[in-house]
Amino acid sequence: MRTMTDQNAVLDTLKTMLGAEHVSDRNSDREHHSRDQSAHAAHLPDVVVWPESTDQVSRLAAYANEHGIPLTGWGAGSSLEGNPIPVWGGIVVDFNRMNRILEVYAEDFQVRVQPGILYKDMNQVLAKYGLFFAPDPGANASIGGMVANNAAGTRTLKYGATRENVLALEIVLASGDVLHTGSRSVKQSAGYDLTHLFLGSEGTLGLVTEATLRLAPVPEYVSAAIASFPSTEAAAQAVFEIMGAGLSPAALELVNTAAVMAINQAEQFGLVEAPNLFLEFHGASEASLTDVLRMTEMICTEAGCQNYQSGLGREARIHLWQARHRLADILIGSHPGLQYAITDVAVPISKYPALVAEAQQALQTLRPMDSYIVGHAGDGNMHTTLFFNESAEQRALVEAFNDQLVEHALRLGGTCTGEHGIGIGKRKYMQLEHGQAALQTMQQIKHLLDPQGILNPGKILP
Amino acid sequence: MRTMTDQNAVLDTLKTMLGAEHVSDRNSDREHHSRDQSAHAAHLPDVVVWPESTDQVSRLAAYANEHGIPLTGWGAGSSLEGNPIPVWGGIVVDFNRMNRILEVYAEDFQVRVQPGILYKDMNQVLAKYGLFFAPDPGANASIGGMVANNAAGTRTLKYGATRENVLALEIVLASGDVLHTGSRSVKQSAGYDLTHLFLGSEGTLGLVTEATLRLAPVPEYVSAAIASFPSTEAAAQAVFEIMGAGLSPAALELVNTAAVMAINQAEQFGLVEAPNLFLEFHGASEASLTDVLRMTEMICTEAGCQNYQSGLGREARIHLWQARHRLADILIGSHPGLQYAITDVAVPISKYPALVAEAQQALQTLRPMDSYIVGHAGDGNMHTTLFFNESAEQRALVEAFNDQLVEHALRLGGTCTGEHGIGIGKRKYMQLEHGQAALQTMQQIKHLLDPQGILNPGKILP
Repeated sequence: MRTMTDQNAVLDTLKTMLGAEHVSDRNSDREHHSRDQSAHAAHLPDVVVWPESTDQVSRLAAYANEHGIPLTGWGAGSSLEGNPIPVWGGIVVDFNRMNRILEVYAEDFQVRVQPGILYKDMNQVLAKYGLFFAPDPGANASIGGMVANNAAGTRTLKYGATRENVLALEIVLASGDVLHTGSRSVKQSAGYDLTHLFLGSEGTLGLVTEATLRLAPVPEYVSAAIASFPSTEAAAQAVFEIMGAGLSPAALELVNTAAVMAINQAEQFGLVEAPNLFLEFHGASEASLTDVLRMTEMICTEAGCQNYQSGLGREARIHLWQARHRLADILIGSHPGLQYAITDVAVPISKYPALVAEAQQALQTLRPMDSYIVGHAGDGNMHTTLFFNESAEQRALVEAFNDQLVEHALRLGGTCTGEHGIGIGKRKYMQLEHGQAALQTMQQIKHLLDPQGILNPGKILP
Repeated sequence: MRTMTDQNAVLDTLKTMLGAEHVSDRNSDREHHSRDQSAHAAHLPDVVVWPESTDQVSRLAAYANEHGIPLTGWGAGSSLEGNPIPVWGGIVVDFNRMNRILEVYAEDFQVRVQPGILYKDMNQVLAKYGLFFAPDPGANASIGGMVANNAAGTRTLKYGATRENVLALEIVLASGDVLHTGSRSVKQSAGYDLTHLFLGSEGTLGLVTEATLRLAPVPEYVSAAIASFPSTEAAAQAVFEIMGAGLSPAALELVNTAAVMAINQAEQFGLVEAPNLFLEFHGASEASLTDVLRMTEMICTEAGCQNYQSGLGREARIHLWQARHRLADILIGSHPGLQYAITDVAVPISKYPALVAEAQQALQTLRPMDSYIVGHAGDGNMHTTLFFNESAEQRALVEAFNDQLVEHALRLGGTCTGEHGIGIGKRKYMQLEHGQAALQTMQQIKHLLDPQGILNPGKILP
């Protein structure tokens, strides 16, 4: 939309197509859709639309494709790598008005939803059926965003990431064609796996307009524990031992001393101010959990655990996980005026202690810069959060730290992103991680499905 | 390879490329690679090769691509839908000499292997580490074949199909380019999921030359049970109730009366000659299994179970599962001189009783034709095996039965194939299952990655 005239013509067309109340070029709406939860620079879209049906999305795509207008999907804006920032402007497609539960298949532990529904809202409805969608990113993400970014969270350890919990998708291609992938059968071997091709493609190959999700029964028995260690390395070692013993926790989170202190202060917790592991176990019987908790305590003690607290009641558990989920917000809130970066590498579990040790060391050299280590440790996923000022020098240091961390994770057999996706910030690592041949294949697939390059341009591919 | 001269030139080139001992156009070798375990018509390849390295496979692909020669991968030949039958002749690439375990990552529950290794051989080695690769098709399939067909088996219920247990692949494209997908991190969100695009593509998009697999620890406690019911429908209803109760069996197999009788006769079993469920549970403690078995018995009894036998010892369990795995062979062996068809639909679990009831009824109308119903019931996957003579009339009846079964499964939200793949026999259902838009996208991807159409031509796409 290069000129004002273009802009007005596009607006008029969109208003006719979707209804005037579903189209806005107001500054407040554009600004609201210009940034996600990352520190990536904001970019304003030219216009924001709120479609109400697959048919509208299809017509929108066909129109944008014909005119070469960028089209970027938008869920809750809670992503962490700039994934939905409309870096080339154009149209942002906000799915908030396509937020219905279309059908609950309670007997099959499945649900079919529109992409705009927030997963916490969905889980509130599903609780009535004794079911829940297990992947749980901290923020209240939309299902469409979770599918686009293959989101994960604390309980991915037991239940898998979004990738493992989607059975079927409805997708609108750049051409406007509507595609149905997968089926409601949990076993499928019927041709190419298009569901998983679109899943995690961050809206660059198509727009999700419906998703059929696998659900899990709300566990009968839940038990949580907190273990504190003399060093982050010792805690990481315990993580590896717990996973190796096949105790299959539902959640196994690492929170370093600085992060524990932040939680204590913000949430009036009395956590031991040392590196902590937060653990949760789900089971069909209380007896089996007692066993598992006892074995976990033994392993932690051998790894040097100084304080092991188990048998947390329901309220204490909810408080603990709320604090864990709010941690990013707590940290950001306690560093007003500063920029932040959140890293997201993941490695095979045997390499987790080495990864954490290296990060710990590298962060020392960045002092007095404030930094934190937290992670979905049982999955080999580690986040660090760094706070820095506007100076080019500090920004370069953070950049260099992330480069070094990613290179280390890749050397250890891991990935540059366990759950936040590539978005803007990690495109530069794609070749290093995947190699030229695989990257070229990805580029060819992008070109095949979106020849005009209108879908979320500037993401994933370098 | 249209002329004898062509044929000789190709043979000479291949012998120079791979070494004469790795190339054969002997009739016995061609015949051995002309049919799988299905009843699909045999087709002779022109030549069979046994590469020993990725580099050789790469050079082979580049050569075949340049000359438009069909190239079809071959594992153990144990597939059930004609998946590796070289219907257009050309070169069959037998991976039997690329059958090494390249690295065991015991601490990470992972292994990296060449595609030609047989999964039972691999699991024998892995047992020393207390680990196993869980997907278990009845036959001793190769890992390459399992990856190509997204194979599954009795324990997929707890551990997932091959799809859920592959982390990374090395793939040779038609062009000869070597591609690496995925990583050893169990969490990955770094761009397009190429691993799952190739997985289940039946060698039509690329040839797998290495696979990194997720393993499971050999379970501490295993318990099995056998339950018999007054009708197949009652057994299917019990399946649904067991799954709905969240008891998560590791295996839950349905075997109808006719199949039970065949097992009794061939394996000197004393199973109650009625529809049976075979169940297996894996747990971390004996106590938890006792609970689960008791609850399972209650559910079975409510569904009309007449005989519930649990607490089978190790030997009885092994005997039971061997018999289940050998069932197809047993049935085929007891019908010498007859053709057979094995169907493979899967539906959401709540629809399983309806699926089984319909199949049961339809098979009645085919009498006196011998037929059997067995299935990975907990997954909603049902097989029927039918034996018929060479007459066009019987063949047409079987064909019509399969058409009707697939249409019914699709109406129930299921798929035309839970685990055998599309191969030759199910291409005709692709449009009905996926719709025109998704099918067209699959065709475009095929054309993108294999523009000459040399890789396993005549499969998957209609």
